[in-house]
Formats: sequence, C-alpha cells, structure tokens
Amino acid sequence: MDATYALASLKNFTLEILKKIGCPADQAALATDVLLSADLRGIDSHGIARLSGYVRLWQAKRINATPRMHIVHETPSTAVVDGDAGLGLVVAPYAMAVAIDKAKKCGTGWVAVKNSNHFGIAGYHAMMALPHDMIGIAMTNASPLVAPTFSVERLLGTNPICVAIPAGEQPAFVADFATTTAANGKLEILQRKNQDAPEGWIQNKKGESSINPHELKDGGALVPLGSDREHGSHKGFCLGAWVDIFSAVLSGANYGPWVPPFVSFLSPPANPVGEGIGHFFGAMRVDAFRPADDFKKHMDNWITTFRAAKTVEGEERVIIPGDPEREMEVIRMKDGIPLNPKVVEDLQELASRFAITF
Amino acid sequence: MDATYALASLKNFTLEILKKIGCPADQAALATDVLLSADLRGIDSHGIARLSGYVRLWQAKRINATPRMHIVHETPSTAVVDGDAGLGLVVAPYAMAVAIDKAKKCGTGWVAVKNSNHFGIAGYHAMMALPHDMIGIAMTNASPLVAPTFSVERLLGTNPICVAIPAGEQPAFVADFATTTAANGKLEILQRKNQDAPEGWIQNKKGESSINPHELKDGGALVPLGSDREHGSHKGFCLGAWVDIFSAVLSGANYGPWVPPFVSFLSPPANPVGEGIGHFFGAMRVDAFRPADDFKKHMDNWITTFRAAKTVEGEERVIIPGDPEREMEVIRMKDGIPLNPKVVEDLQELASRFAITF
Repeated sequence: MDATYALASLKNFTLEILKKIGCPADQAALATDVLLSADLRGIDSHGIARLSGYVRLWQAKRINATPRMHIVHETPSTAVVDGDAGLGLVVAPYAMAVAIDKAKKCGTGWVAVKNSNHFGIAGYHAMMALPHDMIGIAMTNASPLVAPTFSVERLLGTNPICVAIPAGEQPAFVADFATTTAANGKLEILQRKNQDAPEGWIQNKKGESSINPHELKDGGALVPLGSDREHGSHKGFCLGAWVDIFSAVLSGANYGPWVPPFVSFLSPPANPVGEGIGHFFGAMRVDAFRPADDFKKHMDNWITTFRAAKTVEGEERVIIPGDPEREMEVIRMKDGIPLNPKVVEDLQELASRFAITF
Repeated sequence: MDATYALASLKNFTLEILKKIGCPADQAALATDVLLSADLRGIDSHGIARLSGYVRLWQAKRINATPRMHIVHETPSTAVVDGDAGLGLVVAPYAMAVAIDKAKKCGTGWVAVKNSNHFGIAGYHAMMALPHDMIGIAMTNASPLVAPTFSVERLLGTNPICVAIPAGEQPAFVADFATTTAANGKLEILQRKNQDAPEGWIQNKKGESSINPHELKDGGALVPLGSDREHGSHKGFCLGAWVDIFSAVLSGANYGPWVPPFVSFLSPPANPVGEGIGHFFGAMRVDAFRPADDFKKHMDNWITTFRAAKTVEGEERVIIPGDPEREMEVIRMKDGIPLNPKVVEDLQELASRFAITF
C-alpha cells in the first residue's frame, strides 16, 4: 500500500537534498519544481523516485552541481547551449528560456543542448512557452533501450517529445510521450509486479516478440511505437531517430548507442562521440502566424470538437492530450502524492545519508 | 499486368494536361516534377494516379489554375502563405522556398499555409532544404479518414510528416510517413485486390477492430499509429493532431472534420472554419547550430552505425529512413514507371478529353 505525502513536504525534502550536494539555492529550487511536477502530473517514474539516481550520478562525478550553462553558438532564431554537465532539471529550463527569448525577438527560437543529463518530464519545459502565448516543443535523447525495426541491438532511447499548444478558454493541448509503444516506466511497473507485458511492447535478444517484462536484462529491447513492421514500427523508429538527431547530432552531444546511461552503476561508453546527453527545444510565438485571439478561438473549437466526438461503447470521451495529467494534478494538489514503499525506503536512506529528516 | 512507361513520357503528358487546364508553363512544369517524384520514389498512390483527381477538382472550381500565392503575415523567422486555392503541388514549393529564404537570414524559417490543396508527397518539399545544408520539415493535413483513440467519428486525415536531414558521404536521412498505422494508399491496394487487411489498421463504425478493407465505405476509419490504446494509438493521435494544428490552426485553413475532401464528388463541409487545406514547413540551417562539416561527419557516423546493426534472422539490414525510396528511384529512372491498368485507363480518358496523346 502506497503512503501519501503532501507536495510541500516532498518539495522541502528534495530542496534540502539538492542543496546538500552543492546546488545553488535558486537552481535547487528550480530542479525541485521540475522534478515534483512529474509526481503531480502522475508520471511517477520521472519524479522524486529518481532523486537518489541523480545523487548517485553526482557522487560518480557525472553531474556537476554548480554548472555554468552558456550559449556556445547562436543566430537570431537558434542557439546551442553547453549544459556544463549540470542537472538536466536546470539545464533544460535555461535552454527553453533562451528559445522563448529568441521567439520574442524574431518569431521562433530553437535551442539544441549538449553536455546535459536527464531533464525530468519534457512537458515541464515545453509548457514554459504557454504563458507567453507560444507553442513549446521539448525533446531529449536517452540511453539506448530501444531496437530499431529489424535490429536486435539497442540503439535508441525512449526519446520523448512534448508539444504544448495554448488555447483560449480550454486548457492547453499538451502531448508528451515516449516514441516507443510503451514508456520504460510502464515496463518497470510490470517488473515490480512480475506481470506479463502485452504482446508488442518488447522483443527478446533474437528480436522475437516477448511478453517477459524482464527481457531487457537478457539482451532484449523495447520496440518503437507501432510494435512491428506491419503496424508501422518503422515510423516509430523515424520519430525516435528524429529526436536523437535533433537533440545530439545538432548540438554535439552523444547519440544512439553512445548516450550515457542514467544509472550510475553502468559506465558511459569509453569512446564518446559528443558531450553528455542532448535535448532540443522550440518556442513559436502564435502571433508570428496569426493574431493570438483568433488562434486561441480556433484551438478552443478544435479541442471541444474532438472532446465531444461520439465514442466507442464503454468509453466516456475522447481524451485530449494533456487532460489526464491536468486532472491528476488537481487531485494530487488536494490529496497528496502517493509513493511506492520502495521509493519511500530509497528516500529514507537518502535522508539518513545526508542527516536530514524524511 | 502493369505496363511500364518512361519518366520523360509521363512528364510530357502531365505537363500538357496541366497546361490545358490553364496552369502557367512554369507552374505546370513544377507541379509535374512534384507529382512524378512520387512515382519515381515508389509512392504510387501520390503520383500520376492522382492527375485526373486534380483535374476534376479544377473542373469543380475548387482548384485555381492561376493562383497568386502570397505572404499574408510574417516575422523574421515565420510567414503565413495564402495559396489562393492553387494546386498544392505549386503552393508547397513556394512556401518551402520562403522558409529556406528566412533560414538563410536568421537560422530557421517556418511557414504555415492556408487555402491550398493536396501537395503530393511531403518528401519532395522537405528535401528542397537539403542542397542548402538545411534540415527540411513538411507536413499537411488531409480530409478526415482517421478516428482518434476511443472515437468512432473520423476527425483527422492521415496527416503525414517528413523530416529530411542532410549527411556527408551518406545519402540524406528522409523520414516521410503518414501518422496512421497504415497509409491510405496501402488500404487502396487491398481494396483493389479484395484482400483482408492486417488486424490493427482499421476499425468498423462501432470502433471495433476490423480486417475488411472496405470498412471506410460503411462508417469505419483508419486508426492512428499504434493501432489501439494498449499499443500507443493515443501517441499516433497526438502526432496527427499536432500536424493538423500546425498546418491549419496556425495558418487559418480548415482543420479536423472541416478539411475538404480530395475527391470532387464529395462537397466540402458547408460551414468551413478556414480556407482550403493547410500545410506547415520548416527549414533549419545546420550551421545555425554547429559547423556543417562537423554535423555531416556525425550524421554519416549515425547512419552507418544504425545501418550496420545486427539484425533479426532473415533481415538483411536496418533500413535507414529514405533508403527504400532512393533505391526505387534508381530502378525506375532506368527501367521506367509501372502503371496499374486502371490508372492507364484513367489517363487515356483524360487524354481523349483534352485531345492529346497518351
């Protein structure tokens, strides 16, 4: 049974831990906000459950707690940011702010990032654009767990994309998803419960479809969105490849099989082709295309039309991207955030190591 | 048995037909080049097989043979183009050229298009960026054949995306795909042969999975990439929605269920929410991020690494996006373009109507 914690107490705890590892106060506060936004929005795999993982990477000297993030190259609408091996949780908002600033001046801004680490949920960063009446885009590569169509080698991460689009009276459209059939977090849940995975999520080391959730430990892989060639996995591969190339080949980060692992017990590849992991961000001012009020009125119409579509029997409504996370946020702000006992244990261990209270 | 025709003769024929309907010579030549590039690349559903469809739309006064395409709004990195109801085959290259021009000046260029028509293959337009050492992006919405996850109503088109990325010694990476499990062209092939479709491509009017390729005539629908909720169809829905919103809500074109049909025997919806169909184009100068030579060297490494991955038994290699179309182009340049007898009949009819030879 999961115990439930108030957001404020989890935030305080995260903030203290991040200060203990040497993060400046403002960066610690920002990283905390990004990390806990995942728990609030119901993406438990990307929230406080990862805090000890970030700390271990810092211990392994693979995360720099006091990064000097900076622009290494730019044009009026683009920049490349060097994250200085900082927490992706602070590097990403820095880079997204650069994109937003460029969009203010010339309509759109596009920022590729190298030398970074895991950035939490893509949604946080893309949604930074919304209050500016901008469309936000965020993507990142990740360590290789995914086999391209026909491959038995793992060459891509789950490489998520988020596109956040402002509306008027309706809540924003926020599509935030891994470019695989199932996100790794969903597989982890099955691993913990020792339950079979649905057909079409994973393959074994020979590339055959498998329902064993532990297959990745034995040379298996997650598969791209589409599951197999007949159902369009080559399209999912295209998406994951696109994210990898924009995030890392454009920026000078590691790509494909060279992306360093998140877990500290696995060493990064010995022959890196770039620096750290890579991200890519975009911001587009809506009024760089048409008056913002017109745009928002039509987005409202788009959203209400799709939400009101006739559904298959047994389903209440068509889900607009962003609906489930926003609804979860309301619930968890009120009722608190449930944590798995293993996560609680992990956080207690972290607390005792740094002599603070959980 | 398909008869085979030389590219030059099909080009001459297309050019003559387009001149007969009143296209200026330069626009007719461009449209011909775009249309036949589909046949060359093996995307038969989007090539000369559609020529009579465009002519019928012109007859129905839904295509303007002498459009004055123009920019209606712009910033340094963005523009909205009004296609003046022209052939998408000429409107799209015009808009992509605007994007490329903006990218030359400020790093990237992004152009949303309204009041257009079917633009052929997305790949042609995105690939216009390649000789400029730019990444090209092209997408378009299309008439509603696709039901979002949980919907029984058709609200989206097959809404393709193309991303074209230059490399050095390797051929460019060109991912060009519909955001559905299967493109409509593949379904049309099954319809002609009266063969069952694989599970996961289509649903019937109740939203149940179906293998009947004729299901769309009876209220059925194509489904988003991912096939069903358990296999990520909500992600395919996100992609199709993203294309629809960028192409039409940003530009002022029709979106969702209001997108006018390609076939002339179906009237456009009586209460349009915008003008024509919409497209979206992007061009990003590679050296707006890092020196072009560095980028290309790493793209070569990316491509050769993925192509050389160990494969599942029975498969020769991992297919890099763009490989099959490029290989087909080589074959068809040499051996000619095979046309289905029904397409030939259709073209002969067109020939006799306009008193020219096929």
